[in-house]
Amino acid sequence: MNPPNELISRGEQPLNLEMPFANLEEYVTPNEKFYVRCHFPIPEIAADTWLLRIEGNVQKAIELSLAELRELPTHTVTATIECAGNGRSFLEPKAKGVAWDLGAVGNAEWTGVLLRDVLERAGIDDAAQEVILEGADHGEIKEAPRPIGEIQYARSIPIEKARLDVLLAFSLNGEPLTPEHGFPLRALVPGWFGMAAVKWLQRIIVTDEPFNGYYQSIDYIYWQRRDGMPTLVPLREMQVKAQIARPRMDEVVPAGKSYRLHGAAWGGEEEVTLVEISVDGGATWTPAKLLGEPVMNAWRFWEFDWQTPAQAGEQTLIARATDAAGRTQPPKRVADYGTYMINHWLPIRVQVR
Amino acid sequence: MNPPNELISRGEQPLNLEMPFANLEEYVTPNEKFYVRCHFPIPEIAADTWLLRIEGNVQKAIELSLAELRELPTHTVTATIECAGNGRSFLEPKAKGVAWDLGAVGNAEWTGVLLRDVLERAGIDDAAQEVILEGADHGEIKEAPRPIGEIQYARSIPIEKARLDVLLAFSLNGEPLTPEHGFPLRALVPGWFGMAAVKWLQRIIVTDEPFNGYYQSIDYIYWQRRDGMPTLVPLREMQVKAQIARPRMDEVVPAGKSYRLHGAAWGGEEEVTLVEISVDGGATWTPAKLLGEPVMNAWRFWEFDWQTPAQAGEQTLIARATDAAGRTQPPKRVADYGTYMINHWLPIRVQVR
Repeated sequence: MNPPNELISRGEQPLNLEMPFANLEEYVTPNEKFYVRCHFPIPEIAADTWLLRIEGNVQKAIELSLAELRELPTHTVTATIECAGNGRSFLEPKAKGVAWDLGAVGNAEWTGVLLRDVLERAGIDDAAQEVILEGADHGEIKEAPRPIGEIQYARSIPIEKARLDVLLAFSLNGEPLTPEHGFPLRALVPGWFGMAAVKWLQRIIVTDEPFNGYYQSIDYIYWQRRDGMPTLVPLREMQVKAQIARPRMDEVVPAGKSYRLHGAAWGGEEEVTLVEISVDGGATWTPAKLLGEPVMNAWRFWEFDWQTPAQAGEQTLIARATDAAGRTQPPKRVADYGTYMINHWLPIRVQVR
Repeated sequence: MNPPNELISRGEQPLNLEMPFANLEEYVTPNEKFYVRCHFPIPEIAADTWLLRIEGNVQKAIELSLAELRELPTHTVTATIECAGNGRSFLEPKAKGVAWDLGAVGNAEWTGVLLRDVLERAGIDDAAQEVILEGADHGEIKEAPRPIGEIQYARSIPIEKARLDVLLAFSLNGEPLTPEHGFPLRALVPGWFGMAAVKWLQRIIVTDEPFNGYYQSIDYIYWQRRDGMPTLVPLREMQVKAQIARPRMDEVVPAGKSYRLHGAAWGGEEEVTLVEISVDGGATWTPAKLLGEPVMNAWRFWEFDWQTPAQAGEQTLIARATDAAGRTQPPKRVADYGTYMINHWLPIRVQVR
């Protein structure tokens, strides 16, 4: 068991750390508990010489320093980011990739400037379709199919989303970003999985055609059936999901007592409207209590008073969330999701004594 | 050494056969010498119950029998098809995939109906962007990233190409297609690599969005650099290329004599305008003689009288083609082409005695 403020290591090179989700307490995840996902070594960046370049289908390519960025209107939003592979350790058969348990997720206050304000400075062409966000982190892909040589980490977002609510953040919970969180600037793409929240931003490219970079054509993809045929689609929105923080897997709970189940639930670009709990393997469901007020793109805490069985034995608990669009978590794994979007029911097994 | 009419086996399941390119003689490749490329087992299809379905963004989904197809205007075109992996055995380091030598290419007379005539029967929506061609062959992909379960072989073509010159062929050199060549109907996509010439056609789907099926998002792709970043692109047009049929690799040629080099050259959607030969590793080039007349989308035979050196020793010969658009073969392998589009110089080593 990890002390509350200690992140669980899922790899050193590249650095991957997750929050022990059973220790979920704060609605706003403290910086030192916020999960870290890297694809390459963390780049060393000097704030005073760093420049963000905006180019491509713009009226004028520009470069902005951190000081110039801070002159734009500043916004602070509370938003949840979940790694697209969060929960991968639950998959059967075992899937390749970082074996995240439940803690590759966090909710924080992000402060920065709107991407649209930055794009306006350069002037977007009418032909613009997508905006590519390129990080300073780079390295070589080892497994085919792969491009040859070093590549930068990069993802694109459609122009509509880029114009809506994407933030270029320089602060996490009021503190400047640390190197592992993307210093000096990272993207926050509200409602989308973490792979879109590109860290160590160095270049923004407006493009008039779809960007099929490695991280949205080979990695961070899934298969969608259209006309009966699987079609590759880049991951985007987070999927509706509730996670149980306590009890934790294999926790021993007292028999014939009241036990407070609690956890968090989040959707993509929709609000979570319902969290339900099943103590009988999904046959029957009882609503949990949603705590606080809904905050767009942020998780919602919930709790549930569970009367534990009088008799000792093994028990499984399942939480399930539904969003405002009526989307709910599926009982079984969708095979075409590959190693990502793990939002089917994740039963927590406990020992009643 | 293979007898002239014997294809070289590159695998039985699925069936993959190549022509011994050194035995190149006929401008029109005889059916029994035409290379065979399969991805899955050859489907068994009964001609009398077979139907081609046209659906998707059309005014009315329709099904056509072979008899109904034959009522449409019939066209015969001579066209070269090259497998996108032809020449893979030349790659260093060794690449995964079927180890084709030079013979996964052929030139034939294809008879059938124009795809555009079939599409007109169903009536294409204005929103149509692409046309998906689906074969009856199917199976499971073993390596990630992959969709789960069985998939059909399928490829798409942009609506402009679909409306231009794509043929749905039922005859190869005047004979009905054999099962290994796609009986009862296969596509011919002039100027494109063979993966586009879908065999055992069973369904044509008009779609208003790009199709990212397995065979154009994970397989049969390469990387193109845009804004300095590799972007995944599905293979399409064949690349300009000349191949030496004779001498063959390691052939013994007499010293101080005249030797007739010969072979074939082809482009994508452009005519080959020049074939050159180098006997000094690419330092100097001499034009070869182009034979016959240029035929759109078909290969061109060429020959070159070589005065072999007076002294015995090893010699390398290189052929290089240029097309009407000025594109020529690159000296070195383009790494981002992966295991496909092998059109860099392929030196043929011979022994002068």
